[in-house]
Amino acid sequence: MTVSTTDVLTDVLTDVLVVGVGCAGASAAIEAARAGASVVALDRAAPGGSSAVSGGELYLGGGTALQRACGLEDDPDQMYAYLHEALGPHPDEEKLRLYCDGSVEHYDWLCGLGIGFNPSLYDGVSWLPPTADGLMWLGENAWPFTELARPVPRGHRPATDGYGGWLLMDRLTTAAREAGVDIHPDTRVTGLLRDDDGRVVGVRARRFGEDLTYRARRGVVLATGGFADDPAMVADHAPALVGHSTVSDGGDDGSGIRLGVEAGGSVRRMAATQIALSVVPALAVRGMLVDGLGQRFVNEDVYPGRFSQAAVLHRPGPWFTLVDESGWEDVPERERWGVRPAVVAETLAEVETELGLPARSLEDTVARYNRDAAAGEDTLFHKDPRWLRPLEPPYAAVDARRGFDPEGTGPRGGTGVSGFTLGGLRTSVDGEVLDAAGAVVPGLFAAGRVTSGIHGAGYVSGTSLGDGTFFGRRAGRAAAHS
Amino acid sequence: MTVSTTDVLTDVLTDVLVVGVGCAGASAAIEAARAGASVVALDRAAPGGSSAVSGGELYLGGGTALQRACGLEDDPDQMYAYLHEALGPHPDEEKLRLYCDGSVEHYDWLCGLGIGFNPSLYDGVSWLPPTADGLMWLGENAWPFTELARPVPRGHRPATDGYGGWLLMDRLTTAAREAGVDIHPDTRVTGLLRDDDGRVVGVRARRFGEDLTYRARRGVVLATGGFADDPAMVADHAPALVGHSTVSDGGDDGSGIRLGVEAGGSVRRMAATQIALSVVPALAVRGMLVDGLGQRFVNEDVYPGRFSQAAVLHRPGPWFTLVDESGWEDVPERERWGVRPAVVAETLAEVETELGLPARSLEDTVARYNRDAAAGEDTLFHKDPRWLRPLEPPYAAVDARRGFDPEGTGPRGGTGVSGFTLGGLRTSVDGEVLDAAGAVVPGLFAAGRVTSGIHGAGYVSGTSLGDGTFFGRRAGRAAAHS
Repeated sequence: MTVSTTDVLTDVLTDVLVVGVGCAGASAAIEAARAGASVVALDRAAPGGSSAVSGGELYLGGGTALQRACGLEDDPDQMYAYLHEALGPHPDEEKLRLYCDGSVEHYDWLCGLGIGFNPSLYDGVSWLPPTADGLMWLGENAWPFTELARPVPRGHRPATDGYGGWLLMDRLTTAAREAGVDIHPDTRVTGLLRDDDGRVVGVRARRFGEDLTYRARRGVVLATGGFADDPAMVADHAPALVGHSTVSDGGDDGSGIRLGVEAGGSVRRMAATQIALSVVPALAVRGMLVDGLGQRFVNEDVYPGRFSQAAVLHRPGPWFTLVDESGWEDVPERERWGVRPAVVAETLAEVETELGLPARSLEDTVARYNRDAAAGEDTLFHKDPRWLRPLEPPYAAVDARRGFDPEGTGPRGGTGVSGFTLGGLRTSVDGEVLDAAGAVVPGLFAAGRVTSGIHGAGYVSGTSLGDGTFFGRRAGRAAAHS
Repeated sequence: MTVSTTDVLTDVLTDVLVVGVGCAGASAAIEAARAGASVVALDRAAPGGSSAVSGGELYLGGGTALQRACGLEDDPDQMYAYLHEALGPHPDEEKLRLYCDGSVEHYDWLCGLGIGFNPSLYDGVSWLPPTADGLMWLGENAWPFTELARPVPRGHRPATDGYGGWLLMDRLTTAAREAGVDIHPDTRVTGLLRDDDGRVVGVRARRFGEDLTYRARRGVVLATGGFADDPAMVADHAPALVGHSTVSDGGDDGSGIRLGVEAGGSVRRMAATQIALSVVPALAVRGMLVDGLGQRFVNEDVYPGRFSQAAVLHRPGPWFTLVDESGWEDVPERERWGVRPAVVAETLAEVETELGLPARSLEDTVARYNRDAAAGEDTLFHKDPRWLRPLEPPYAAVDARRGFDPEGTGPRGGTGVSGFTLGGLRTSVDGEVLDAAGAVVPGLFAAGRVTSGIHGAGYVSGTSLGDGTFFGRRAGRAAAHS
């Protein structure tokens, strides 16, 4: 609800008001406060959001101190060339250019918050490395990217075991408080306040049954996350996610997008989605991924989000990982994420029958793969030769629909597919929310997944936390100076 | 621009104002006038729009008089079952149900306007049959639809040679005038008028340098078409069309969507697109379609828009039609739409080399196809056995990027891909424009491609003219009675 300001009293008055304290909102709050603005940040729960339950990887490069400590050379042009293709087609070139050019400085800023990164590289393929190495590959060393840019790993992992999102949010929240940001938890924004000229000047909010009015002298920054948790918005705008699980803290309900649109903002790329298929990359890369017709469709050594999109968005399911015994044994049990074969068999014909694949489909597919592997070249999809080896019986096939079972407490199942949304409010590179004609909505800023960021149709891990923190900072500074 | 009504004079006053005289606007105008409303219809050019340059097919069924005259049985449930899958995933079930249940009546209504349909069936596969048969298949007799619904042809073609859109629009426009609709050509709407309660009560328009104000007592119906001709909107919302040609009269610039959004309307499914690949279905069905890796990916006997989506949205290009000599000769020259082989060769290895396909890719693909053809069953994609025959040398391959050359004046080339947009304003089944919360924007209606209609991600010929005329009628009636 947009409300005229003439009829409301003000409970809280500040310079900059930030709505949502995930990685984008916290970064905006820090930078606004450091620029000298008084800042209040609201969260309907506690600080953290979906960022806090994420893996915590940040896609950074261009020659960060961490890359240099690992003996790796990088530059912003190589980073841009990789991301332009990996996040494409049609990424936001203006935002992406700034993101790559500013990445070294952004890394230093994150380190300055007290986030550590261990100076070692995990050289395997995984959604989440089993080590505490600070650097990981995110598809840079896979075809076709190897032909477009010099392969350099750019996945920067905060120094902790396992999921690192909590650490990132802990440091960001602490830094925000240290900068003087006043964080109000349990406070849900219910509408934007606009003055008679249409400028956004605050919000209405609700906390424990009490209605509150927050006024912002300089600007309101929306940082409320995407809309994966709102089934109606998903059905209207991102139908590829209908029926699947969401990657979120459960609160990505699109409320910030709706508020921004009510205030005159426009949206873009609402159908774009991150997709994760429940496949263990270490197994897939040692064998192959096949679709519901027994056809191979991708080089399995790409970033796993890319093979997930290749499967879910473009191939008929169900999707299976086919490996042989030595491929299976080659992956330590704890790195198999608790998956179990749906079938183990001496012949591919048996596998086809058990999985309901067309007769001779796997036989044809494996025959070609083995011929290529023996010759040392994956002529269809160009998987790196280090992963190429003819598959020999016995074979095992894993059904992605059974999901992962890392704790041995039962598979996480569902459809085997989960995702979040990448589309949202259209913003300038300084986070100003833009209307359909490209004009600024005065007083309104946004960052993170409530916006459409650097992404086109593609996605790579670390680019959402990366884009959220990077453009969150810019939005916070712009709001402080507006 | 939305303008308060207090400061404008009225040049024209009517009950219902229709903006855009394509098939949806004309249908809305007819029905509003027949319901007793005074109706003025504006078009920025002349009546016709993209509808007038279309093929003219209407997707109708459920047992129309034409189907019965051809000795065919149909019912709305079978029609619904087909379209639910063909227009999916996730079509608008409420609209689709009404569309199927009302199709026989809608056919009769169209006949009542003086549109004739010849009572004979074209039994081939084509974008546009070379005959004047009134009925054609639009994919109903292809797998997987044959397993979901009884195959009945439902492509209804106005009785004329070639493209029939002009005839449809001629009859609709004549009927509108006969019903008393006042059509104002050369009149471009520049903004909606809203009263102090937010109700849409008219438009501002411009004609030959003159600013005009139209007031509507009962409602304004937007019927301005999609946004394929606006590059910025395409980039923001339907990136799959970036760089490709548009299927339109050149005026589908999204202006009506922007007007509706400014007035508080919401959009849905903005990324959905119709796609046409420059492939001759009669050739493809006698051979195969392959992608840029030499892989087959679809049963070539589906509705050609479906194989086009399967290629362009889901497979790496370029895309080729592979046939053998007897397949080529089997298609009369005038039905080859002027295409020429990019390569003719005795061996598939030569074809691979000439087209830049991976070595042995076509050999593997054809080996499987021929094995299946010899056995009479397409085990991967289930093309109807009547089209299955092992391919023998010499082979010819046609490159879709060379386009068609029906007049022999040079290929229509480009990328070989063209399309239009299917997303737009969210409307009720009566054409009321809805906001993000699902509430009606008072006084504002919409129909045709300015809206998101019955479609999910899929498309079949005749469903845009069909949905436009069907829901255009409903919008016109609702506006007249509001």
